[in-house]
Amino acid sequence: MNPFSVTEIVRLALVEDLGPGDITSRLTIPYNRQGRAHLAARGDLVLSGLTAALETLRQVDPSVVFTPAAADGDRLTNGAEIACLAGPAISILSAERVALNFLMRLSGVATLTAQYVAAANNPQVAVVDTRKTTPGLRLLEKAAVRHGGGRNHRLALYDGVLIKDNHIAAAGSIAQAVARALKRAPHMLKIEVEVDTLEQLREALAAKVDMVMLDNMGPELLRQGVKITREHPDPAVRATILEASGGVNLTTIGVIAQTGVDIISVGALTHSAPSVDLGLDWE
Amino acid sequence: MNPFSVTEIVRLALVEDLGPGDITSRLTIPYNRQGRAHLAARGDLVLSGLTAALETLRQVDPSVVFTPAAADGDRLTNGAEIACLAGPAISILSAERVALNFLMRLSGVATLTAQYVAAANNPQVAVVDTRKTTPGLRLLEKAAVRHGGGRNHRLALYDGVLIKDNHIAAAGSIAQAVARALKRAPHMLKIEVEVDTLEQLREALAAKVDMVMLDNMGPELLRQGVKITREHPDPAVRATILEASGGVNLTTIGVIAQTGVDIISVGALTHSAPSVDLGLDWE
Amino acid sequence: MNPFSVTEIVRLALVEDLGPGDITSRLTIPYNRQGRAHLAARGDLVLSGLTAALETLRQVDPSVVFTPAAADGDRLTNGAEIACLAGPAISILSAERVALNFLMRLSGVATLTAQYVAAANNPQVAVVDTRKTTPGLRLLEKAAVRHGGGRNHRLALYDGVLIKDNHIAAAGSIAQAVARALKRAPHMLKIEVEVDTLEQLREALAAKVDMVMLDNMGPELLRQGVKITREHPDPAVRATILEASGGVNLTTIGVIAQTGVDIISVGALTHSAPSVDLGLDWE
Amino acid sequence: MNPFSVTEIVRLALVEDLGPGDITSRLTIPYNRQGRAHLAARGDLVLSGLTAALETLRQVDPSVVFTPAAADGDRLTNGAEIACLAGPAISILSAERVALNFLMRLSGVATLTAQYVAAANNPQVAVVDTRKTTPGLRLLEKAAVRHGGGRNHRLALYDGVLIKDNHIAAAGSIAQAVARALKRAPHMLKIEVEVDTLEQLREALAAKVDMVMLDNMGPELLRQGVKITREHPDPAVRATILEASGGVNLTTIGVIAQTGVDIISVGALTHSAPSVDLGLDWE
Amino acid sequence: MNPFSVTEIVRLALVEDLGPGDITSRLTIPYNRQGRAHLAARGDLVLSGLTAALETLRQVDPSVVFTPAAADGDRLTNGAEIACLAGPAISILSAERVALNFLMRLSGVATLTAQYVAAANNPQVAVVDTRKTTPGLRLLEKAAVRHGGGRNHRLALYDGVLIKDNHIAAAGSIAQAVARALKRAPHMLKIEVEVDTLEQLREALAAKVDMVMLDNMGPELLRQGVKITREHPDPAVRATILEASGGVNLTTIGVIAQTGVDIISVGALTHSAPSVDLGLDWE
Amino acid sequence: MNPFSVTEIVRLALVEDLGPGDITSRLTIPYNRQGRAHLAARGDLVLSGLTAALETLRQVDPSVVFTPAAADGDRLTNGAEIACLAGPAISILSAERVALNFLMRLSGVATLTAQYVAAANNPQVAVVDTRKTTPGLRLLEKAAVRHGGGRNHRLALYDGVLIKDNHIAAAGSIAQAVARALKRAPHMLKIEVEVDTLEQLREALAAKVDMVMLDNMGPELLRQGVKITREHPDPAVRATILEASGGVNLTTIGVIAQTGVDIISVGALTHSAPSVDLGLDWE
Repeated sequence: MNPFSVTEIVRLALVEDLGPGDITSRLTIPYNRQGRAHLAARGDLVLSGLTAALETLRQVDPSVVFTPAAADGDRLTNGAEIACLAGPAISILSAERVALNFLMRLSGVATLTAQYVAAANNPQVAVVDTRKTTPGLRLLEKAAVRHGGGRNHRLALYDGVLIKDNHIAAAGSIAQAVARALKRAPHMLKIEVEVDTLEQLREALAAKVDMVMLDNMGPELLRQGVKITREHPDPAVRATILEASGGVNLTTIGVIAQTGVDIISVGALTHSAPSVDLGLDWE
Repeated sequence: MNPFSVTEIVRLALVEDLGPGDITSRLTIPYNRQGRAHLAARGDLVLSGLTAALETLRQVDPSVVFTPAAADGDRLTNGAEIACLAGPAISILSAERVALNFLMRLSGVATLTAQYVAAANNPQVAVVDTRKTTPGLRLLEKAAVRHGGGRNHRLALYDGVLIKDNHIAAAGSIAQAVARALKRAPHMLKIEVEVDTLEQLREALAAKVDMVMLDNMGPELLRQGVKITREHPDPAVRATILEASGGVNLTTIGVIAQTGVDIISVGALTHSAPSVDLGLDWE
Repeated sequence: MNPFSVTEIVRLALVEDLGPGDITSRLTIPYNRQGRAHLAARGDLVLSGLTAALETLRQVDPSVVFTPAAADGDRLTNGAEIACLAGPAISILSAERVALNFLMRLSGVATLTAQYVAAANNPQVAVVDTRKTTPGLRLLEKAAVRHGGGRNHRLALYDGVLIKDNHIAAAGSIAQAVARALKRAPHMLKIEVEVDTLEQLREALAAKVDMVMLDNMGPELLRQGVKITREHPDPAVRATILEASGGVNLTTIGVIAQTGVDIISVGALTHSAPSVDLGLDWE
Repeated sequence: MNPFSVTEIVRLALVEDLGPGDITSRLTIPYNRQGRAHLAARGDLVLSGLTAALETLRQVDPSVVFTPAAADGDRLTNGAEIACLAGPAISILSAERVALNFLMRLSGVATLTAQYVAAANNPQVAVVDTRKTTPGLRLLEKAAVRHGGGRNHRLALYDGVLIKDNHIAAAGSIAQAVARALKRAPHMLKIEVEVDTLEQLREALAAKVDMVMLDNMGPELLRQGVKITREHPDPAVRATILEASGGVNLTTIGVIAQTGVDIISVGALTHSAPSVDLGLDWE
Repeated sequence: MNPFSVTEIVRLALVEDLGPGDITSRLTIPYNRQGRAHLAARGDLVLSGLTAALETLRQVDPSVVFTPAAADGDRLTNGAEIACLAGPAISILSAERVALNFLMRLSGVATLTAQYVAAANNPQVAVVDTRKTTPGLRLLEKAAVRHGGGRNHRLALYDGVLIKDNHIAAAGSIAQAVARALKRAPHMLKIEVEVDTLEQLREALAAKVDMVMLDNMGPELLRQGVKITREHPDPAVRATILEASGGVNLTTIGVIAQTGVDIISVGALTHSAPSVDLGLDWE
Repeated sequence: MNPFSVTEIVRLALVEDLGPGDITSRLTIPYNRQGRAHLAARGDLVLSGLTAALETLRQVDPSVVFTPAAADGDRLTNGAEIACLAGPAISILSAERVALNFLMRLSGVATLTAQYVAAANNPQVAVVDTRKTTPGLRLLEKAAVRHGGGRNHRLALYDGVLIKDNHIAAAGSIAQAVARALKRAPHMLKIEVEVDTLEQLREALAAKVDMVMLDNMGPELLRQGVKITREHPDPAVRATILEASGGVNLTTIGVIAQTGVDIISVGALTHSAPSVDLGLDWE
């Protein structure tokens, strides 16, 4: 994570929780009281979010010392220590909730990703995220997916060309849409077309795209799509990357991962991951 | 929602998804192409997030006309129209994902809240949220809880005095912590104390706080706590607001809601609500 | 004060005074010249504003060492040292005016508050501020009131329910306005009603609000209002907090403080406090 | 006022007062209720601050119609209408306090300035402000001084060269400090030197500066300083602009204005102007 | 250009030029004076920058009507009208310089790009930009290159993998660096390696990268590099995109464009394009 | 340079280049790899931009140590070391391009300025810049002009009164425009009038302005303008500062500098300076 990824969302999160100040702590805790607390897992999880937690403490009070006992991507069991925090008690209490909110949610994403990767059970197939992320947390959630063993689809609208039905309709046909993209797209971006049918797949292959997203097809259609692609007469076309999308859950991903596709994208990794439980215990 | 609640998080969400631009649309769709699309529920849900969706479109292109067909708080069934969007096709496509990300998540919170309220099944008891919200979405999620039929606990650290174990430890005792708060807190804020045992409850009642949070007590202890409070010799103390917290889920809330507490707080409303499914269909 | 309270207003104040730079100092003072200066009171005052002064210096140049010789809330006499500043002379000169502008104004608020508290001359009565504060300085002025011995009314529109004539008119009656608030307000906020007559006071008491603001009543009416409240048949109602507001100045506050009200709010504390005089003397 | 002068301070003022929202209005006033209110003077005053008030309403809700009945700089008597506001009642109530806070304070500055100008009673002499302004309100207060009939000293550290004792000490002498400034200052800025004695005045005149600030001299010394300057052998030096500073109040300014100085600067115009009283009355 | 591309840099440019206001216009032009002016080319040029110019006017005063008479990418001759501006004279004068500064510089980039494309004189070869752009103007200059007939290399560090000598050194070898990238890079980004020698080119081809940048090779070496690539035994490798970089100017580009490379990158397009001349003439 | 001059433009430049992160470095370079690199001139140049380069590194990673080996304003020859950078390799690589982009461009401005000053070849005449600067870089480019031996015209619209044809037309005549400015302008700003003819010059001199800009006059007319001014009957008018503007290039400036004008303004210093070449070499 670079420093620009988290500064703004952490500030926003602190403003909304801390705003004019932590009244309770101001009223009850002496200004200079020092404290030390331990952050620990309450349940098994894959850790993610240390960058945001660290930045949260730094923004509240740079004098708080945050000493990680684990790293993003680590598999932790119930009770495992994540970090030790030491410094002014008021500062730690003021930052605690926001730091935990980041860690609970991002570790939730990493943990769910790890479950999907395990269920896919095929190292040849990449489990990837989508753009269905929490507003404001895109980069942090994309990192959490990597921490869970997944890979990233494009970050955003600007780092990949993904031609969907509306683009095709506007351009007139898959062939025309792809032709326009090939002629003017930044040359370092790959071009992917989303298709709903095998016929559209054939059109996309004929247009020589880099990737095809097979949307909402069942395992049988996926298998046929793979066969059509891998047995294409043009050797370059046979190398087209195939992505399965839609209808993927922990039950279905195992079968989909055996159809021969290269990539399986899963919106739920980021849009429906439950938070994990963490606790901050004071010495 | 006032205008300052959503501006920044919407901007942040757009910057992270749109950033330097929607390359695919720029390459394939004519600059002046107009379009019209319908946003619909894909599944039963309680709607929330229209303010954020509207602001998303406004920031991308104020010329897009967003016509709601439903209101926040409405119970919608699968297929129900939520809104109609009309304007430049590139603008709608550029804003679509972010607008949907807000609506899917916030309607998820509202929908889960409605399930908890139904499971509590006691109009005398308020189901309330916590500060375990998504970073950046605090106010939107608090509104979503209201849309789902819940009520709000304090928004943040500044609009309520909630004395927890650390504050008690620092002040010396519940009595001392409450005394300090009573003497210096802004007089419009109520004072609540979190207790783990009935003994602590008795101390809190003796200190004449406005509210007590009974943390992680089972139904039996809760019932005893209610009895202690409601039968207290001082009539003013009998009116103390009692909040149950911890160990609340869709299975347990029904029993807890019969213990006589006034308020049940549920972190899962905001930290673990799965997104609902929505679709944008073009004419 | 938490770190988010002062950062933005200090930056704004520095941008407007320093902007593209202190041309005079750049032209006449060697880049590396070090200096040391003493900040002192020129007149008797109650000190407030150290947080903003410190932040001002930090934003201009973190290498300047600011050593306070007094604390916010201290009563200082003419000539008393407030702080010592040491570091690059250009940095101190660039920050001087803004730092002094904060201290002069905020100490002015604290000093005037102390005069009102002294004039009230009744430790049972709290002298509190209003929302008539200087734009941008709300939190700093609210702190200055505390430094002067006053207490704070609600900070803003979001941390208290204060029902005024317009709200009553819109809801239909005091009873209806209060009923709506009781049903939906965040449960940690107290509810206050502003009344102009004793009749309205009786309505407000009947509606069981937490507080009543007696607006622009003279001492005699205030005394009657107190009597009506304290002799109310319902023991809970007798505990209603009573606030006197309007027509309060250094001459009248003594009498008002003897009427039996709990709180006296004074807009002048923040909207009309003259600045105190301070000086920065170089070694 | 240009659009960049007020946007940020208005936003800051609204965030601190409105923040998460006006809870009382949300609870008691129907969402679509329209209203109309009249802003009027409660006492005699010189008006200033309409730009900030207008921007406040615009930021809260651009649909509110703000119709001024007076202009900045107008002399108004008790009861005179200042503006009519019409639009959603919740929006007007949410913006009211901040808009009034700007107008009360800025009209206070304009009104006090007009009193100083009247007391100076000499159209040949300009009454000007200083940099002792309220943090965040520099440009608005400078405009208020103009509305009250005063003129502006430099806005800030960047639009004028004002050589004070520290600069002189660092450069070695008045002559050397002025020589350095003349050689390198932007050629469109005038150069002023602050002097405490007539001897320093002679040095400054010898250095051929554009202006001299005679600091904390009584009327007799000011008269001598004027004489020294106006009878200087070099005709160019005789045209040097002379500014009196320090010890200026409503009692002394009349005499000072007869000493022959061109300009009298008064810090109190901005640092100690009491607010005027305004009222918003609903139809 | 999407709305987020220009808002901030336009605001920054206006703050630095307009800041506290256009004093001259305020002093000399009546507040309500309307005006109309015509923006025209003074010399032959390729137009770019209308989005920024339009946004500049919008930020200063949305009531100014800006009517373009030409489009970005148009080839204009001396005297050709670019746009008509109508509205308050003070607003147009306040915005004029900033709007022209954007147009002069960006049209300079587009014009120079068109000269390079003409000199390359080979439609099979793309002339592309680099990351050597003006701080703050990256997206605007990338668009200007397109307006001039060029194409864009990656926008930034995040939308392409470009392995240079430092990355190779850190990874151990070209093969290892590429292997690490292939395994973990977002799958929609292409991978390019920068090479200085034909030996390195062979290593890169063996590693099966998508692109190779041939850095600072003369035409003869470029031709050999093309031959090595196009005659490679692996048909997939023969399709590797080849980019010439370094030592490219208007004299050399013609020869380089005949060597068989696909892409020629030119830093000077953005880092050394002289501004074109434009004029604003008032009716 | 003060700290507020560069923070925002550096942040903007980093966001646009680094944004979500340097993918290549993340993929290929170990997280903790340290490195050391030397920044050197590749060609003769006048250095400018160290403040921005330093701030760039600070924002990316404060742990990088930046040790300058030269100062802004230094004349460097090909190969001369400018600075040494030491710290985490990924941080240096992430910041490199932006830091170099600032230094290349600003040193380009300083270098071109030095060429103009040399060509003017008259120490009595100041070579000054204009407001035709790069959007966002105004203050940095104004400093670069000083580093190259030039002086600065007004920074912006707020620190000087420059009356042009539109202002004259609106006011009615030069005399009227100047009269209005003299009466109301801040008294520390000089007043300049732009004239196209000798007749207008005579009007401006009669109005007793501080400066006259002789726009687009050839050397012969400039000489006549100088003669008219220096032989004016009023001794104060003879001291009017004369500025030549328009048609200035490296060929013509020598002759213009002999006409007797005091100041020559050159837009090309900032709007058309080519970048200088710099290199970062790793140990």
